[in-house]
Amino acid sequence: MVSAQGSLSGSAEARLREYGISLLDGPTPLGSYVEAVQTGNLLFLSGMLPMINHKPKYLGRLGKELDVEAGRDAARTAALGALAAAKLHLGSLDRVVRIVRTAVFVATHGDFMDQPKVADGASDLLRDIFGHDKLAVRSVVGVASLPLGVPVILEVIFEVSN
Amino acid sequence: MVSAQGSLSGSAEARLREYGISLLDGPTPLGSYVEAVQTGNLLFLSGMLPMINHKPKYLGRLGKELDVEAGRDAARTAALGALAAAKLHLGSLDRVVRIVRTAVFVATHGDFMDQPKVADGASDLLRDIFGHDKLAVRSVVGVASLPLGVPVILEVIFEVSN
Amino acid sequence: MVSAQGSLSGSAEARLREYGISLLDGPTPLGSYVEAVQTGNLLFLSGMLPMINHKPKYLGRLGKELDVEAGRDAARTAALGALAAAKLHLGSLDRVVRIVRTAVFVATHGDFMDQPKVADGASDLLRDIFGHDKLAVRSVVGVASLPLGVPVILEVIFEVSN
Repeated sequence: MVSAQGSLSGSAEARLREYGISLLDGPTPLGSYVEAVQTGNLLFLSGMLPMINHKPKYLGRLGKELDVEAGRDAARTAALGALAAAKLHLGSLDRVVRIVRTAVFVATHGDFMDQPKVADGASDLLRDIFGHDKLAVRSVVGVASLPLGVPVILEVIFEVSN
Repeated sequence: MVSAQGSLSGSAEARLREYGISLLDGPTPLGSYVEAVQTGNLLFLSGMLPMINHKPKYLGRLGKELDVEAGRDAARTAALGALAAAKLHLGSLDRVVRIVRTAVFVATHGDFMDQPKVADGASDLLRDIFGHDKLAVRSVVGVASLPLGVPVILEVIFEVSN
Repeated sequence: MVSAQGSLSGSAEARLREYGISLLDGPTPLGSYVEAVQTGNLLFLSGMLPMINHKPKYLGRLGKELDVEAGRDAARTAALGALAAAKLHLGSLDRVVRIVRTAVFVATHGDFMDQPKVADGASDLLRDIFGHDKLAVRSVVGVASLPLGVPVILEVIFEVSN
């Protein structure tokens, strides 16, 4: 599925089907904000929590209640929420020109240092769907606490076509 | 003051007057940076602290020295600083097309999980001034410490007209 | 080297030479992301760690293993990484129109409150290279932990010319 030029054949929507990924319901705001705002060609998303059916899939901190595998899956789940929110706004993920910026906030305890491995749960999914040539920049930070007690929040900015 | 279409009548400046809100002095940088930078139609603000007369209105962490009500008011105070900084740059808040992105960093201790309620202190004020149809995306994170020992920092990006 | 108008004579590249600064190797991603993405006239960088020869120059937290001077130098080192990443993408730093946004995440322990002094290690370098009239907005946050155990991460958005 990778062409001679190293870019993915097919579209993001085709890749979703190929991987058998059904997008979740779009996320629900926990306050006075919305999940997606487009300004010019930039689509900003709210910080995505690892939610399934509007409930946290994981609770706890890395380095305490959760191990790296759970953290990775939490980050992947948050990325599925980001895809759902973007699709809800755009109609089709094929309007994504590229991912611009990702930020991953990981709730950690003590001397936990594997935040990048956790964040890759989100980054790997986005790479699989949009391709290597649309990779974003990334910031990864270990934080004291997150809303509802979830272990990961993912922020995304996309460049989109009109 | 809400029309049949659900959008606010009047302008942001009119709403400020209606609510009897006098904007604070603009904030003062704590280092080698400025409080507002416009690039194209995007106005970026520095992280706003909950300051009154250039002094912190609150010190401490949520889940330790401060309760949710204090945190909410701290977030609201930071949002007043954001409005002051934006007005100083723009001349009039009526040049704000919409709020694009907000990020709220809340200093927390232990298992505090009500960061979203704290953040709503800022989000609710911005909604009241700019209206439901101009709501931003939002990321909320609980952090270990903040400059000067304040409980909340608010980041805002506005879309503005030229 | 400051003109009557208060703006720097010469270009960013000239200033680098004047200060005798050799840029580091560009940073290496720790996962599925890239170090720089340009969209329109905005250049986003990944969170920069204080790395020398792809190894952390400092490990530890402010308020525990590291003092403010070490933190300042870590932030400056991260800013050198940002300059290297930007130059790799742009060819020349003279294509930087201005710095738009900086965010500095500082790993802290206990009641550490001097995050702004730490962050100035980065902000002062950027000011020296690009000049006062190109200062960015800034957010500074104290966090629980950072990748690899480094004390500082720096995020930068530049406005660039085409």
